[in-house]
Amino acid sequence: MNEPIRRSVDVEVRYAETDQMGVVHHANYIVWFEVARTNLCQEIGLHYADIERRGYLLMVTGIEAKYRQGAHYGETVQVTAKIEKLWSRGVRYAYRVEREGELLVTGATQHVWIDRETGKPTRLPADIAAGMKRVAGIRQRARC
Amino acid sequence: MNEPIRRSVDVEVRYAETDQMGVVHHANYIVWFEVARTNLCQEIGLHYADIERRGYLLMVTGIEAKYRQGAHYGETVQVTAKIEKLWSRGVRYAYRVEREGELLVTGATQHVWIDRETGKPTRLPADIAAGMKRVAGIRQRARC
Amino acid sequence: MNEPIRRSVDVEVRYAETDQMGVVHHANYIVWFEVARTNLCQEIGLHYADIERRGYLLMVTGIEAKYRQGAHYGETVQVTAKIEKLWSRGVRYAYRVEREGELLVTGATQHVWIDRETGKPTRLPADIAAGMKRVAGIRQRARC
Amino acid sequence: MNEPIRRSVDVEVRYAETDQMGVVHHANYIVWFEVARTNLCQEIGLHYADIERRGYLLMVTGIEAKYRQGAHYGETVQVTAKIEKLWSRGVRYAYRVEREGELLVTGATQHVWIDRETGKPTRLPADIAAGMKRVAGIRQRARC
Repeated sequence: MNEPIRRSVDVEVRYAETDQMGVVHHANYIVWFEVARTNLCQEIGLHYADIERRGYLLMVTGIEAKYRQGAHYGETVQVTAKIEKLWSRGVRYAYRVEREGELLVTGATQHVWIDRETGKPTRLPADIAAGMKRVAGIRQRARC
Repeated sequence: MNEPIRRSVDVEVRYAETDQMGVVHHANYIVWFEVARTNLCQEIGLHYADIERRGYLLMVTGIEAKYRQGAHYGETVQVTAKIEKLWSRGVRYAYRVEREGELLVTGATQHVWIDRETGKPTRLPADIAAGMKRVAGIRQRARC
Repeated sequence: MNEPIRRSVDVEVRYAETDQMGVVHHANYIVWFEVARTNLCQEIGLHYADIERRGYLLMVTGIEAKYRQGAHYGETVQVTAKIEKLWSRGVRYAYRVEREGELLVTGATQHVWIDRETGKPTRLPADIAAGMKRVAGIRQRARC
Repeated sequence: MNEPIRRSVDVEVRYAETDQMGVVHHANYIVWFEVARTNLCQEIGLHYADIERRGYLLMVTGIEAKYRQGAHYGETVQVTAKIEKLWSRGVRYAYRVEREGELLVTGATQHVWIDRETGKPTRLPADIAAGMKRVAGIRQRARC
């Protein structure tokens, strides 16, 4: 197995994301995870919006996050995503939020693929599945 | 013309709704207006979700708000909505946010009815239109 | 040890809380957990806002959630919180989100108490600590 | 009077910002206006966070927005801010949200400067006031 692809996106803290404690409210990191997931998805060569248009929804089944330091308004953080685990009907992503190299938050989300029509769990079509494997760092044998 | 129906809903301030200024972030009042609009809609005898299910979307075309005092975490505010203007293809609502009688924020939103299938502006079906008129305080002549 | 106190709060789904999948966006359940935590806190006889005013912040150090079913606009859900674990400098809460008895989401959040002045972890003053223990269902021996 | 400085920032639509209508929920544009305001503020040579640190809060007293077209997940929009009016104790910003040249939303926000200590309206210190005037396109006579 190769290493999974890691891809980072800069997120500039929004004033609206702070709370009266003076730091970013903890629920917003979950939204930032999603921003990083969207960003990583582009490594497949498709925007996640296109995957939805083709009839597949990536339903969230679990999330977790650990908070070490808070981000502040006026700061820009780096949110990195990678695929941690991939199976036929789902995927688990892992995330790191850093501020100039300092680790602020780590987390993970777990998902299943849903057929938009039926609302049932499904497998991805071959081309998207192959793209996911590549992003996950899973070496694929030549089909011959 | 009768008076429009006014209907209030209690909203308890959520911690996540505050910002680092220590008050509710101004964008959240727009969400509260929507909560009050949903609440008022029930006077028609239908949940707004049912109106959507019947194929009509209430698209927002304009909003405005004036802020006098901020709401704080730990407080419960009353958000009152009424229909200010009603025409065949749209509606204007007005709102007041109060904290035990003290006026915090006023606002208004303007909307057009959209046909969910075509995405075009449309008129409401007679039963919902009649309900809207009643909520707007528009006396309807008997149809005979 | 007694049973911890469980306290539920009704949350009416807001339109703004939905996403284009047609269900409540997963990050909003984290905000609902907080609403339920605030609600449970009142069992101590103090609003959490008052605890902050006395100089103590309940900093979030970890969250987790498992999603089984999505909530929809037009529905009201019940969010229940209880203290799952309590130690001198922190607390762990567990949550359940239900829709008329059907379990939608479970979760937990972990926290440490922070001294607002120093920004360092701290213990709670005796009266609040005693209240927390009572809510956690920890029997306290008479001090004599 | 010169022209005010206009400054644009790219905003990539977040999945969490959509609602069940399939477009960005209208309250999020208000948050984007703030992102553009923060961005424009940097023309003064100070981050707005630094202005707060110096003891001045830019309290929102009014907002308005007109919606023509909705933004979708998968799109990046350009949000442009400029100062429309500037007076000794307040400021009015105007905004445009565009998607590759197509106008989606226009809006404005009005603010007063508040002294963080007293909570009362105040004037800005000379250096920040001069920066605001420059951004507003107000020619300042040489003081000699």
